[in-house]
Amino acid sequence: MHNFVFHNPAKILFGQGTIEAIGPETRAWGRRALLVYGRSSLKESGLYDRILASLHAAGLEVVEHGGVRANPLLSHARQGIRLARARQAEVIVAAGGGSVIDTAKAIAAGTPVEHDVWKFFTGKKSIKTALPVTTVLTLAASGSEMNSGMVLTNDDTREKFGFGHRLLHPRTSILDPQATCTVPPDQTVFGAVDAISHVLEFYLTASDTDTPVQDRLMEGLIENAMVACERCLRDPCDYHGRANLMWTATLALNGLTAAGLGRVGFPMHLIEHSLSALYDVPHGAGMAVILPGWLRAYRTTLAHRIAGLGGRLFRLAESEPLAAADQTIARFAKWLADVKAPLTLDDLGIPAAAIPAIAANTRGLARTWRLADCTPERVAAILRHCLD
Amino acid sequence: MHNFVFHNPAKILFGQGTIEAIGPETRAWGRRALLVYGRSSLKESGLYDRILASLHAAGLEVVEHGGVRANPLLSHARQGIRLARARQAEVIVAAGGGSVIDTAKAIAAGTPVEHDVWKFFTGKKSIKTALPVTTVLTLAASGSEMNSGMVLTNDDTREKFGFGHRLLHPRTSILDPQATCTVPPDQTVFGAVDAISHVLEFYLTASDTDTPVQDRLMEGLIENAMVACERCLRDPCDYHGRANLMWTATLALNGLTAAGLGRVGFPMHLIEHSLSALYDVPHGAGMAVILPGWLRAYRTTLAHRIAGLGGRLFRLAESEPLAAADQTIARFAKWLADVKAPLTLDDLGIPAAAIPAIAANTRGLARTWRLADCTPERVAAILRHCLD
Repeated sequence: MHNFVFHNPAKILFGQGTIEAIGPETRAWGRRALLVYGRSSLKESGLYDRILASLHAAGLEVVEHGGVRANPLLSHARQGIRLARARQAEVIVAAGGGSVIDTAKAIAAGTPVEHDVWKFFTGKKSIKTALPVTTVLTLAASGSEMNSGMVLTNDDTREKFGFGHRLLHPRTSILDPQATCTVPPDQTVFGAVDAISHVLEFYLTASDTDTPVQDRLMEGLIENAMVACERCLRDPCDYHGRANLMWTATLALNGLTAAGLGRVGFPMHLIEHSLSALYDVPHGAGMAVILPGWLRAYRTTLAHRIAGLGGRLFRLAESEPLAAADQTIARFAKWLADVKAPLTLDDLGIPAAAIPAIAANTRGLARTWRLADCTPERVAAILRHCLD
Repeated sequence: MHNFVFHNPAKILFGQGTIEAIGPETRAWGRRALLVYGRSSLKESGLYDRILASLHAAGLEVVEHGGVRANPLLSHARQGIRLARARQAEVIVAAGGGSVIDTAKAIAAGTPVEHDVWKFFTGKKSIKTALPVTTVLTLAASGSEMNSGMVLTNDDTREKFGFGHRLLHPRTSILDPQATCTVPPDQTVFGAVDAISHVLEFYLTASDTDTPVQDRLMEGLIENAMVACERCLRDPCDYHGRANLMWTATLALNGLTAAGLGRVGFPMHLIEHSLSALYDVPHGAGMAVILPGWLRAYRTTLAHRIAGLGGRLFRLAESEPLAAADQTIARFAKWLADVKAPLTLDDLGIPAAAIPAIAANTRGLARTWRLADCTPERVAAILRHCLD
């Protein structure tokens, strides 16, 4: 096990009827709030009214910054920063999924500084302070509700970059599984795949693998994401299915899985970021296509590790590593097909001819994330594994 | 899954060479520190000198309160409180295992208040403020380094009570597995058994069991405690074995396993507290004796749950619940025998005739912990399962 620091001060309020805590939890951090949310679903579900009522009842002045979209844009975060400054917001409230929370974090980081917020993403500036963020989660997927990361797409350069800093942990996140009962099947699957990929990437790229504590945790989370996703597809209102999926997705990227693994990479995310930066596909849909392709590309070099995972997850009888690895990959691919995830670039409407451009687009983030072995050539080779 | 709040702001610095961080981590909370430690091992191992040097180098004034013993005493914590007040300590540093950290927490809670600290344990007063605590852990066992609990024995009344409050989370805990390489085999086993019991009790007493996220985490922790313990017994200096055992014990009682389980009990701990309050046996030794006895006492009422655990942990082929539960209990008992844990009350030097007195002693804590079904009669019946 590698040395690590684990420090996650985010407070989680989990369960039915917790939405109304957002007012007092936010009021603890200031009196003027910027409420960040998406486009239509928050209002349709009635959550918008409940959240606003709770914020007002707690004595908060609320300025609204709606309109966050999937693959959230830097330009929209910049607008939020201008608004937060103009209205002297003291706390940012995010009500939505990962895109909304990430936008809120970018506003929280960008509001107190003179320079452009994108400089944090490119590593040209480092965060010294940030406004506090509270959240109401409406999608089990990104884990942003309990971590310090954020992902934005620069609409000028078509770069989708991710970045994290300890000051970006939400102060309080409210996780009410009932708020996700209206999430449609495809988005439910994309969220589960996102959670699986967060765990799987660390599992398979860890520089230290004498880590059975983390391994058992990660195997459990992958299994739960799959099982809970199936429950939610069978019955979208299965509260415990939604609850298990939600808590799984949160734990999948809250720092606990990576602690002790040494250096971990995020190579599947690297590729997906370029995919959705250029083609604006839902992040989880992109991950569903890349995941088995990436595994196939690494089936020999990572055979033992993939086989070990399959042995635990699927109780494979096969003991020969490469055969067991292939069976494991096939099981993941079958599960993705069962839950009707997109399986190929073609399913996403992306032609094979686009591969060089996607691969070239990964260059900037690979540099920022220091993934030296993720060359455009290597990425293109992996993407060719995602063609069928 | 039940509603829950999860909020654990403790910062963990884990790994080799982290001991020297104790100075700066403590200095962040004050300038005058009370250093709490045990009797001899800290000085023998050289850790005492390293810690003191780090504290001094960071500019701290250090007052010492050594002499904490296993099953730490209220009277000794009271002495520490008097000393902390007299010397106006601003921060408490614990260097040791659970007994030392718990004593430090009691001093942290008791120093700012006029009344006796024991009133927190009996529920007559509630904590409103506490001095900050930092720790250097030297024993993988209690989990106190990352939780809000503490256990003390009242030497006047022979009551061993546990109590927790969110203000008692250590601010920073330093976990260097190398610091545990000198822990003798019996203490290593007692620590592993303590960690197992922390997980097992929640697993088997949860009021909500539609909790696969938590279940997979808990099964992994139990497995790891067993496997890592065996590694440490084979080679006391196996760094990764020590690291896995240490991180397992920390995660076993940091709030994560219980989050979502609804109401959980601590009935095995209840009984052990009386055992060691009256007979001063090591806590983990007492737990080793009670654990299989308790399981045998509940083999029918909890057959499905015990069988489910055994199926996952030991990959039992048996599918009939009661038979599988019995096999699971037998596997735990065999493991305890393999690692040379005490197995019966007799192994602890406690005569069968002592059972009524031990059972009667549980009454006070059962009331405080609201374990209504743990009557002295029920406890006595469980203890009779611990005779052979």
